[in-house]
Amino acid sequence: MIAVDSYALLLLLSILKYTIGKPKGVTVAKLQNDLFLRACKRLPVERTPIWIMRQAGRYLPEYRAVRQRYDFLTMCKTPELATEVTLQPIDLIGVDAAIIFSDILVIPEAMGMQFEMHEGIGPVFPHPIRSGNDADKLKKLDPTVDLKYVMDAVALTKKGLSGRVPLIGFSGSPWTLLSYMVEGQGSKTFSKVKFLIYNDPKLAHRLLDKIADAATAYLSALIEAGVNAVQIFDTWAGILSQDDFEEFSLGYIRKIISRIKKKEIPVILFAKGVHYQLNRLAGSGADVLGLDWTMNIGEVRKELGDKVSLQGNLDPAVLYAGHEKIKSEAKKILQAFGKGSGHIFNLGHGIPPDVRPESLKILVDFIKEESVSYHMDDNQHGEKSRV
Amino acid sequence: MIAVDSYALLLLLSILKYTIGKPKGVTVAKLQNDLFLRACKRLPVERTPIWIMRQAGRYLPEYRAVRQRYDFLTMCKTPELATEVTLQPIDLIGVDAAIIFSDILVIPEAMGMQFEMHEGIGPVFPHPIRSGNDADKLKKLDPTVDLKYVMDAVALTKKGLSGRVPLIGFSGSPWTLLSYMVEGQGSKTFSKVKFLIYNDPKLAHRLLDKIADAATAYLSALIEAGVNAVQIFDTWAGILSQDDFEEFSLGYIRKIISRIKKKEIPVILFAKGVHYQLNRLAGSGADVLGLDWTMNIGEVRKELGDKVSLQGNLDPAVLYAGHEKIKSEAKKILQAFGKGSGHIFNLGHGIPPDVRPESLKILVDFIKEESVSYHMDDNQHGEKSRV
Repeated sequence: MIAVDSYALLLLLSILKYTIGKPKGVTVAKLQNDLFLRACKRLPVERTPIWIMRQAGRYLPEYRAVRQRYDFLTMCKTPELATEVTLQPIDLIGVDAAIIFSDILVIPEAMGMQFEMHEGIGPVFPHPIRSGNDADKLKKLDPTVDLKYVMDAVALTKKGLSGRVPLIGFSGSPWTLLSYMVEGQGSKTFSKVKFLIYNDPKLAHRLLDKIADAATAYLSALIEAGVNAVQIFDTWAGILSQDDFEEFSLGYIRKIISRIKKKEIPVILFAKGVHYQLNRLAGSGADVLGLDWTMNIGEVRKELGDKVSLQGNLDPAVLYAGHEKIKSEAKKILQAFGKGSGHIFNLGHGIPPDVRPESLKILVDFIKEESVSYHMDDNQHGEKSRV
Repeated sequence: MIAVDSYALLLLLSILKYTIGKPKGVTVAKLQNDLFLRACKRLPVERTPIWIMRQAGRYLPEYRAVRQRYDFLTMCKTPELATEVTLQPIDLIGVDAAIIFSDILVIPEAMGMQFEMHEGIGPVFPHPIRSGNDADKLKKLDPTVDLKYVMDAVALTKKGLSGRVPLIGFSGSPWTLLSYMVEGQGSKTFSKVKFLIYNDPKLAHRLLDKIADAATAYLSALIEAGVNAVQIFDTWAGILSQDDFEEFSLGYIRKIISRIKKKEIPVILFAKGVHYQLNRLAGSGADVLGLDWTMNIGEVRKELGDKVSLQGNLDPAVLYAGHEKIKSEAKKILQAFGKGSGHIFNLGHGIPPDVRPESLKILVDFIKEESVSYHMDDNQHGEKSRV
């Protein structure tokens, strides 16, 4: 009960602080739907909350209409545009959380790396890091200045949300950011970053330290700006062996979490392809672990008990199927997790651009309705918390 | 002991059959180094055998010299060239097994699909499977006719090996072949093949059945032609959820293995990204499981006991490191597996094209020397088998 109250109090304080500190015209309403935040903390909920990775994305015709007029980076850097597409899935699909439209690579760009988005290839750094000299050139990040456009987008989105649902901010993990910064673009073999960690581990650690500082500052600024939760994406965790994951990735993630933890905002960790040592991930300080679709969410819950909440983990490709198949596969995930709070429904990866929005709407509506029965017991015990 | 003797007898019979049935000039010598075959069957060995996935590949200047003169498909289809590059790592690196130079996609091509190799993209099927009609057009494979060039390459390679080391043949799993045949090329999202299994599972199963028949016929023909072991690559296993892996992949792999098992040749199953249900993989009928480098080979051995041998699983990127680091990482794998037979050293994935051959030679020499102490006990017990 103490946890509930102090959490509510802190949320109230952060709302007050946010309202006081913001420019005129920005008002922050009380959260009308806090299911997502309660599920992050394993507090009782009336139903399982749902949001979708890449929910503000190309599968929506409304997103494509904006994207047709502006390139991807302009959308990231123009708060009005970022806000517009962030709000689209709230209005159109009815998810239980918004996630600010941005990219994990805004951090390296703000540290001084030229960043381009190439059609058909994805993000590209034309001058990747190749030496200690390149590492020295990376500037110390002041997110309120260097990434002011994200903070402005957060403020504007909060206004647009008017407290309907919580807002999530995110960052790439130091390892995943380093991989991009050294490879220069996506890679099949990751030979350049692997070459770095095996041949010059000292330089690798120096870079990871610098990136971890930047990510910490960035996430802290996002929280100050008003996000209600943060997610750390370790997209390339799965290319490391178990020992290397600990040394070059998880250690830095733990550090970031311990530093932002004081803010009492839920932290979600999504480390893709890390099926081993779930207990170690659960001990990272994160409140929630995101799972890809090769995991059995029920078995993971059994293994971890009540240490963390779990987010996921429907195969995104199920959304290509007919409506009945979508429902039956979604039901399997609900059943596997079982009764009680601590589950945030999501896909096991971002939604593909060629999914029909109706299919996602079917999924979201189904979870909202079907999941009620998994929370009857919690609510009968009268432990429901309202903030 | 019965297993040993019947195995030896069968090997002898197959050698006799092979020698009798072959054209003049082809002679098959007794195997001088059968460490690999013994390790596949968990029979005592003097040291841990080692071979390397993609050992006949671009990292070797000698391979690139051939490749400069001929395109990839010509190399596959010209027995003399396929033999030349298959033998290179035996002569140059000293591995304990040869693997016939070929490609998993020779099966779909032989079933009638036009197949091209595009520089920078990889294999491409310009007319991928899109309908039941396309499926009907796939012809029933007669490997001794349609893939005669592989059989000829096997015969010629056996001659070139003169019994120095065993020869491995391989096939893609039905699921992995289907993925290529439906996507038309490599994919990030695999949306087309996923669309197929979720929207027309009947057609998917009809195709998988057809491909499984072809793979069975192909592997059987390879065994007749003289390969001493076969490996089934399920490269895209990891994109399936657990239930889907069982339904669309493992079921067909089991079927193939049960049909070729009568040949008493060791079967290696390398299903990438399938970290769950190791017990189910071990129950597939395979003698050996290949592991990628995110697994802990010691923990897997503990979990599976003596059900199967294990192959793997050094991170290929370790070969970018200095010699001492290569040795220390290799030693970790030997230590993790521990004492006794049942380990075939390999990388957790194919060797990258930009590794220096000296680095691989360092690894191979180190394993040959260092692993002796892990087999002292077996040999003291006098259970050594010679075939």
